[in-house]
Amino acid sequence: MDLTRRDLLKVSTTIVLAGALTPVAVAADDPLPSWNEGAAKKAVLDFVRATTDKASSKFVPETERIATFDQDGTLWVEHPMYAQVVYCLERVPAVVKAKPELAQVEPFKTVLSGDREAIAKLPKEELLKVLAATLTGMSVDQFADEARKWLEAARDPRWKRRFTELTYVPMIEVLNFMRTNGYKTYIVTGGGQDFVRVYSERTYGIPVEQVVGSAAGTRYHYDGSGRPYLIKDPKLLLNDNNAGKPESIHLMIGRRPYAAFGNSVGDQQMLEYTKAGEGARLCMLVLHDDAAREYAYGPAQGLPDTKVGTFTQALYDEATAHEWTVISMKNDWKRILAS
Amino acid sequence: MDLTRRDLLKVSTTIVLAGALTPVAVAADDPLPSWNEGAAKKAVLDFVRATTDKASSKFVPETERIATFDQDGTLWVEHPMYAQVVYCLERVPAVVKAKPELAQVEPFKTVLSGDREAIAKLPKEELLKVLAATLTGMSVDQFADEARKWLEAARDPRWKRRFTELTYVPMIEVLNFMRTNGYKTYIVTGGGQDFVRVYSERTYGIPVEQVVGSAAGTRYHYDGSGRPYLIKDPKLLLNDNNAGKPESIHLMIGRRPYAAFGNSVGDQQMLEYTKAGEGARLCMLVLHDDAAREYAYGPAQGLPDTKVGTFTQALYDEATAHEWTVISMKNDWKRILAS
Repeated sequence: MDLTRRDLLKVSTTIVLAGALTPVAVAADDPLPSWNEGAAKKAVLDFVRATTDKASSKFVPETERIATFDQDGTLWVEHPMYAQVVYCLERVPAVVKAKPELAQVEPFKTVLSGDREAIAKLPKEELLKVLAATLTGMSVDQFADEARKWLEAARDPRWKRRFTELTYVPMIEVLNFMRTNGYKTYIVTGGGQDFVRVYSERTYGIPVEQVVGSAAGTRYHYDGSGRPYLIKDPKLLLNDNNAGKPESIHLMIGRRPYAAFGNSVGDQQMLEYTKAGEGARLCMLVLHDDAAREYAYGPAQGLPDTKVGTFTQALYDEATAHEWTVISMKNDWKRILAS
Repeated sequence: MDLTRRDLLKVSTTIVLAGALTPVAVAADDPLPSWNEGAAKKAVLDFVRATTDKASSKFVPETERIATFDQDGTLWVEHPMYAQVVYCLERVPAVVKAKPELAQVEPFKTVLSGDREAIAKLPKEELLKVLAATLTGMSVDQFADEARKWLEAARDPRWKRRFTELTYVPMIEVLNFMRTNGYKTYIVTGGGQDFVRVYSERTYGIPVEQVVGSAAGTRYHYDGSGRPYLIKDPKLLLNDNNAGKPESIHLMIGRRPYAAFGNSVGDQQMLEYTKAGEGARLCMLVLHDDAAREYAYGPAQGLPDTKVGTFTQALYDEATAHEWTVISMKNDWKRILAS
């Protein structure tokens, strides 16, 4: 019910803004006003029309309408570093305060030094120690409280805004449009499930039970008064990247998506799995090719290489071969972030 | 939409039946017509009223209304043996046909002998070999097809009816009543998630994405033509019994339930976890004390002991101490199975 009201509000706001502020002619009923006309916008509109029109041969019953969205780089900014990794690094002082002996131990020593170059060079195994120390060992409620406070206070280095304000407006429009048409929208992220659940409902209108992500296990304990609680375990249970994405989709959702959105090599198998289903399937990849308004990285299409959200040329070629649609941030999106 | 229509149909059918066939006065708006008046029925009605009335101090917003239901022995008959175990035993001939060398190997040799006493005496480790051989190693689609065919053909030994017809009418009424009041109903079962998902929607009105159960992992593969598929892995990923229930609830749902229903020691931690939340919480345990209409087993309250759905006296005492409600099948339910 809340969502419906919010959607309605969104639609009316859009209409008001379109009428009052923009000189361009915008159809009042355009569900994707932040998208330029082109193949990408058309792919979304055509897919939703074909799968929701009962007269269409590609009609999909409402119970089966599942759309999955990667988060980092697909729904919000992931450069220069994933928000959750920033969270983990910034939690280190509090962890060391509780366990002072860590101050002289790597990788905590380097993180505490504040030397950005040295931190960026930490090998993956060392970074995993930071993640384990800051994401596990506390109760699930404590973790959610800490993450919530940080998300409220922290600011992105470039825009000086909260991370949850750095979502892509065109993708929020797609989320709303698909939900309005009976699609159940899921986040399927390599990021931590418990972290994303802290803000998914408010930021994306996606309830916590529709967030699938990498996850450590939990352990059931009793406190001194016999009250049970769950403690976050260091053992990784689900690695929700690459093949882990379709595997987690089967485990957590149990249905093959009809639409899947990603932006990097970690999303490849989710899109393959989606496309391998029968009937109409929508697979889209966001290409970060707009250094002016956001960032430019690939290395597909000659864009600079990156370790954060890598989009290889091989992935680009697979997209072309399998009729996935590549979204050019530069050409397909009128605006990227909310102003 | 389908559910709503089905619910409406159910209500009208109930009214018609109540008017035409039964001499007892039944209020046309009684959402639980198969329940006798008493503490158990009152507990359900009071809880739903308190948590859905905006004027109540115990009001729960609709997005947070989660109710979890164990399946075997809580929603359907589990004696003399869990339906899924019967499935696994009956699949053995097909497995041996594909791998003839197994015919001379235990436990397959015993299962093939058809000697029920010997089969019942198989140690747990041997039984697990049967489960692994019949539940894993095939694609998730193949498994669903096989299970679907079996559920259509197999008959329960006592009533000679399909297993999916042996659901408890009073519990189906609770499922419908809670959904009508904005509760999202989940199955949280020690049984196999993939097995229950085959029939959950049709049998309980519960979509596959709201089935949480024990689960083996899957592995992402490509077939000869490059088409990806998921194969069921022998490695157990989630053991959804005891402490595994709240742990899986956190992983798969991410919210603490407001209501939880079970019938055995395997449900203890789910009910504890539910009750430990703030505000109104409904915890109920079905006691099988009706040998005439169903089965009688405990060993709580002097009922015969069992290994299938054990309800210990300690669990009964915990229920009393924590204000969980024990449902007596004999006294609280007017009818048990659909006629």
